[in-house]
Amino acid sequence: MEAEFNKKNGNILDINNIDSQESLIPKAFILNGILSPADIKQMPTEQLVKLAEEIRDKIIKITSKQGGHLSSNLGVVELALALHNVFDAPEDIIIWDVGHQTYVHKLITGRNIDFDSLRTYGGISGFPRRVESSYDAFGTGHASTSISAATGFALARDLAGNNNHVIAVIGDGAMTGGMAFEAMNHAGSIGLDLKIILNDNEMSIDSNTSGIHNHLLSMRKKAESDGTKLSSGFFEAMGFQYFGPVDGHNLQDMTSVFKSTKNIRGPVVIHCITKKGKGYAHAENNPQIFHGVGPFNVKTGERNNASDELSYTDIFAKTLITLGKEDERICAITAAMGLGTGVSEFQKVFPNRVFDVGIAEEHATTLAAALALSGMKPVLAIYSTFMQRGFDQLIHDCAIQNTPVVVALDRSGIVGEDGATHHGVFDLSYLRMIPNITVMAPKDEQELQNMLFSAFKYNSLVAIRYPRGKGPGTELSNTFEYLEKGKGEWVCKGNDVVLIAVGSMVSVAEAASRQLKNEGIDVGVVNARFVKPLDEKLLEEVFSDSKRVMTIEDNVIAGGFGSAVIEWAINNNFYTPIRTLGIPDTFIEHGAKKVLHKDLGLDVDGVVREIKSWIQQNIKA
Amino acid sequence: MEAEFNKKNGNILDINNIDSQESLIPKAFILNGILSPADIKQMPTEQLVKLAEEIRDKIIKITSKQGGHLSSNLGVVELALALHNVFDAPEDIIIWDVGHQTYVHKLITGRNIDFDSLRTYGGISGFPRRVESSYDAFGTGHASTSISAATGFALARDLAGNNNHVIAVIGDGAMTGGMAFEAMNHAGSIGLDLKIILNDNEMSIDSNTSGIHNHLLSMRKKAESDGTKLSSGFFEAMGFQYFGPVDGHNLQDMTSVFKSTKNIRGPVVIHCITKKGKGYAHAENNPQIFHGVGPFNVKTGERNNASDELSYTDIFAKTLITLGKEDERICAITAAMGLGTGVSEFQKVFPNRVFDVGIAEEHATTLAAALALSGMKPVLAIYSTFMQRGFDQLIHDCAIQNTPVVVALDRSGIVGEDGATHHGVFDLSYLRMIPNITVMAPKDEQELQNMLFSAFKYNSLVAIRYPRGKGPGTELSNTFEYLEKGKGEWVCKGNDVVLIAVGSMVSVAEAASRQLKNEGIDVGVVNARFVKPLDEKLLEEVFSDSKRVMTIEDNVIAGGFGSAVIEWAINNNFYTPIRTLGIPDTFIEHGAKKVLHKDLGLDVDGVVREIKSWIQQNIKA
Repeated sequence: MEAEFNKKNGNILDINNIDSQESLIPKAFILNGILSPADIKQMPTEQLVKLAEEIRDKIIKITSKQGGHLSSNLGVVELALALHNVFDAPEDIIIWDVGHQTYVHKLITGRNIDFDSLRTYGGISGFPRRVESSYDAFGTGHASTSISAATGFALARDLAGNNNHVIAVIGDGAMTGGMAFEAMNHAGSIGLDLKIILNDNEMSIDSNTSGIHNHLLSMRKKAESDGTKLSSGFFEAMGFQYFGPVDGHNLQDMTSVFKSTKNIRGPVVIHCITKKGKGYAHAENNPQIFHGVGPFNVKTGERNNASDELSYTDIFAKTLITLGKEDERICAITAAMGLGTGVSEFQKVFPNRVFDVGIAEEHATTLAAALALSGMKPVLAIYSTFMQRGFDQLIHDCAIQNTPVVVALDRSGIVGEDGATHHGVFDLSYLRMIPNITVMAPKDEQELQNMLFSAFKYNSLVAIRYPRGKGPGTELSNTFEYLEKGKGEWVCKGNDVVLIAVGSMVSVAEAASRQLKNEGIDVGVVNARFVKPLDEKLLEEVFSDSKRVMTIEDNVIAGGFGSAVIEWAINNNFYTPIRTLGIPDTFIEHGAKKVLHKDLGLDVDGVVREIKSWIQQNIKA
Repeated sequence: MEAEFNKKNGNILDINNIDSQESLIPKAFILNGILSPADIKQMPTEQLVKLAEEIRDKIIKITSKQGGHLSSNLGVVELALALHNVFDAPEDIIIWDVGHQTYVHKLITGRNIDFDSLRTYGGISGFPRRVESSYDAFGTGHASTSISAATGFALARDLAGNNNHVIAVIGDGAMTGGMAFEAMNHAGSIGLDLKIILNDNEMSIDSNTSGIHNHLLSMRKKAESDGTKLSSGFFEAMGFQYFGPVDGHNLQDMTSVFKSTKNIRGPVVIHCITKKGKGYAHAENNPQIFHGVGPFNVKTGERNNASDELSYTDIFAKTLITLGKEDERICAITAAMGLGTGVSEFQKVFPNRVFDVGIAEEHATTLAAALALSGMKPVLAIYSTFMQRGFDQLIHDCAIQNTPVVVALDRSGIVGEDGATHHGVFDLSYLRMIPNITVMAPKDEQELQNMLFSAFKYNSLVAIRYPRGKGPGTELSNTFEYLEKGKGEWVCKGNDVVLIAVGSMVSVAEAASRQLKNEGIDVGVVNARFVKPLDEKLLEEVFSDSKRVMTIEDNVIAGGFGSAVIEWAINNNFYTPIRTLGIPDTFIEHGAKKVLHKDLGLDVDGVVREIKSWIQQNIKA
């Protein structure tokens, strides 16, 4: 079957025939006529094949302009077309696991016309969302939820005596997440009528090495060698009927397997083999790079705006490598996000000291605890939003046992275009309530280096949270400075207001202070550095000497850093007026990071405005 | 094999020969000579069998006196003896999943002499704890962590070039937890040298119905019918070599399977069949009741102090049944804790409207979201501490999509003897930071009824948290009162201090107020009812009229209810002096709930003391 794929690479898009990048509207004659899946149901195969090409063309164009998830969407074009051809959404419920592969689904369920607004503020989301369309049965973003959701819809259907179909489309990567197993275990045991479409692209976000992966691989190999219908020890043990593997890019085969299994009313798995990036050579060759990609040149595959400036991720990786050279106990854990977290860079230098566990944050976190208790110095590199999956393990395995694990939380704060499911805006709140943990956030690149260096020295549980993308661009020193645990710093003094800022908000506070000082308002700035423990001595100084205190963080206000500061102040009898700036009590939508920060008042203008209005208010004494 | 077990019931303990319950020291001639596992290594089988009897005797005695986990420990007597006979702990690492089955292990690893202090304040913990013994390689309490931990120890061992064994002992119930699968998937894919002892008692805490359970059951049946070595599609697909099933109560068979597999250096599963409660007829017949049991009469099996007073769990169940009769959309989800949460009672009346998903809180939470979106009214009944496992799903699936799920968090606050891994003291903090959620805590039994009644009416995401055991004993009304969302109440007025109390702390606050009023200090009490949203109007009244405000909650102070109140007060320019009482920033050990509350100052005396000392202080203005 592998050989088949390679042969079919002949049908790859001719890049030179795609319109120039300037035009956002490709020649989509068939696609533009499709207002709902009903419009593809009677379509002859040749036309569907043409439609598939138009869809690929459109997806490549739009992601090349404004970035997005490319590889995964190109991989499911035929799958989505066949699915909507055979099943009747929205009555039949289709749940897309993770959901970054729903561009095709969106294009044929009435959102083609607005598709240029993909992932922009106020525009179409990059993930399925119930508020966007009745075809989006269940919102996703984090992996491995689809089978649980499908189980819920199927149970409710049965209780109501309906007979619609319920389908979960899940990748082999997401299948490694424990909750997918929990749900299969439940649905399988009760013989529930639901279908799992296993979209096996031999790769989740990063290259997938897992037991289940090897099992699927062996089944692909068997299918290649004898072509007969196979059985799967795994799925059958779970109580599922197994069908496959099917060539996920052969529209006729896909349609036919969906049709033939449609009326088997019980737990069914249909195993489809797809190729990430299918039809766009640059993405086929570099599916990881084109997984979630910024704007790029369609012809060359080169990414635009690539600069030499290092992102926080790059600096984390670089520093970890330096530290790893000096201490062989340092090792890194990633949950299938080696590239995104920078762990892949460390892996190039220390292949034996990286553990990629698959999409499995729970296991990753407990694994870190055990490695630490064995004398290793593990860094657990997980995006802030995904660390929510390991919350219990962080408390139960890492914190109670006081393990020296360093948690590196990339993509903290507002992340931008991925939206509500991905913003890392809860971590300061859910971390600082945990005993035995130290929580830090660097104000800039150099401070991230120093924090990572110091964290390993603390020999205790430490979390460092830093934002997506680039910092203020501070020059990096070749040496690391040890940061005393729980010590913040004055960035500049001032006593009309002191801004106590966390992480990325320090530079915003600094700029606001400069501007306000020019206008005669004396604003001091403190870089908190530590959200836990607080620098009590510094806080005492701040609260004793200044007229007002304002905290600022890229985190929810509820229970966050500001909340910690006022807990301290109040219980220590300081009654200086305080304001806490941060994310309000609502989920934040998608859009450019800058736009969202501006909207939230977490930019220089917003802070300046807030301080001025506060000073103008009459304060109760 | 089932038949075998029944036949062997002949070797059940003769209850009449057990010493009267008054003497806590049974005739344990062999056991008392065992200071470490070395002492059993040369022991002839007959003597080990006698030792097993002594151990059962001691465990029954002690749990009958002071409660504890009985069934699970009686089930692993031979397993633990054989394991310590063949392997060399602490060099060989043994990790006990969940850990409530470690009494046998503790008795033969130097803790026999202190065993009378089991689960008491300052005494031996009911779970493995690294601080207690070097034989407790990894602390447990929540299920399904052992394979992750074993993977970490094994990876570290390999990096260090050591060759000790690493063993995870896990029940079939804990095997349904997703992270066990995540870890197997990881370890299996890399051919890691570790052993999983699958302790299959056909029942986790509640009766186990799952896909994996059916698979194991079919293997037991096959073994009964032909007795040959079997293969397991499931474990082999995961990359594990499978051995079994073995009779877990046959010391010779167990020793022999451990010996013969000891030097297979790769991922191995050994499937042992055990019986919960083995050797004590009352527990064999009622393993669920004797799972975690209070003091009982050894001869009759009757539990002491059983009263007619209803616990919060009983009232939850009773109310849910009443509401379920009026609305067929109401359904309940439990993660293998039907008995503990009261969902079993609801199930007796509405068997089709209960979903027991196994130990799978992640799946349970997303399932609840999907059921709610399908028009059902699900209640997700989970202990507070275990809800931590579904934290991400609560945000990502329930809250972002604004689903009308009612989360019933039993065992909130200090739970007592189960200790640090089980106290439900974080929930107010990790819940109130989530947008779209309503968080309530009832002051008494009647209010729990009203809250459950009201929660279904809110048609939004609601969490109700209530403590383990009995409330103040308020008489129950047959009618329910609708509680307006976000409305608290004055319990009594007073203006030297107003105590704003949450849930179980309301009655403590009331009693403290009465006492202080007698001493001339005018203490008012507010029942907050809602931790989110706050009753802003009531807070305004409190802060406008009283000299001091004190919050009190059975939750960590960091980010908890008090923190919410001061966030509100400060951002609304109220500078009334405030104190926040609650759990300090440290993990709380095991001990009786009363003792722990006293220790924490969360009892009447503690509150009285705190208020007096505060009033005596000089307050900065």
